[in-house]
Amino acid sequence: PLNFAESHESDEEKQFRRVFKQLAGDDMEVSPNELMNILNKIISKNSQLKTDGFSIESCRSMVAVMDSDSTGKLGFHEFKYLWNNIKRWQGVYVKHDADRSGVISRRELPEVFKAAGFPLDEQLLQLIARRYSDEDSNMDFDNFIGCLVRLDAMCRAFKTLDKDNSGSIDLDVKEWLQLTMYS
Amino acid sequence: PLNFAESHESDEEKQFRRVFKQLAGDDMEVSPNELMNILNKIISKNSQLKTDGFSIESCRSMVAVMDSDSTGKLGFHEFKYLWNNIKRWQGVYVKHDADRSGVISRRELPEVFKAAGFPLDEQLLQLIARRYSDEDSNMDFDNFIGCLVRLDAMCRAFKTLDKDNSGSIDLDVKEWLQLTMYS
Repeated sequence: PLNFAESHESDEEKQFRRVFKQLAGDDMEVSPNELMNILNKIISKNSQLKTDGFSIESCRSMVAVMDSDSTGKLGFHEFKYLWNNIKRWQGVYVKHDADRSGVISRRELPEVFKAAGFPLDEQLLQLIARRYSDEDSNMDFDNFIGCLVRLDAMCRAFKTLDKDNSGSIDLDVKEWLQLTMYS
Repeated sequence: PLNFAESHESDEEKQFRRVFKQLAGDDMEVSPNELMNILNKIISKNSQLKTDGFSIESCRSMVAVMDSDSTGKLGFHEFKYLWNNIKRWQGVYVKHDADRSGVISRRELPEVFKAAGFPLDEQLLQLIARRYSDEDSNMDFDNFIGCLVRLDAMCRAFKTLDKDNSGSIDLDVKEWLQLTMYS
């Protein structure tokens, strides 16, 4: 029987649920391997995005930071949130690749992160370039998405942990390891 | 001219420095690509270790968590510390793979992490299995090393941040993002 939530969905949500059912398979959860296959299918159809493909490591990490109910896979709402972000960030990537190189150069980095919703200071941009860009300071599409998925999740985690909105969080070693190892 | 530190090294350290010079190339720092090449050379010679190889993502992450001077690469002492740990953990891996399957099963996990220096509680082991083991709950060699390098770095980071040894750390959003995004 259709549950309450399903029966009150918009047409768009119903259509997305059909796609999700196909992707997720019988267990109705998207595993890191399923996520990798979907993402690599998308980029193979889009020649504007330079990338060496999404690796299983990067997909495991994305699933971990998005997996709020700790099943090890993404349920419908977790996947929908991720999917909508990826679509939006793909648009930002293409729009801000001013020289049509297929990658985001160091010079394009501040604007592209701002447009993606994260106006970062120079110190954080430098650190992100060091971790997610190649030796020529270019960031390709899989690194861009991996970085933003993580950045978005870490910003949300901070807000959740900062219960009294004081601007700082307090962690013991177990909380610290749970947060940093499952990511 | 030889600097003070170099001229007072033990024979073992001198030998290691020669190897390091070969690996690191002209800039005398080990990049994520150089690390990947070295690690994949080692595993290709060792049939007891099941692995699909070290990916560039996992090597970038290892360099980031080990890169205490923020150069984006590993200097001599950073690399030496990493190298000694990897050698030690490789021994632990082989010794604790009781059924000679080439991977660490979920059942072998508590003992192997204890032997590697990290006696973890069941909750953390569960979370680590979810992130670093495959869908059959087996952890292969590259995931094992990637996990331990991160775990070791996060434990050291906590100790450094917990200046007054109170058992808890206090972070603002910028510190939080610097720690979690460069990893």
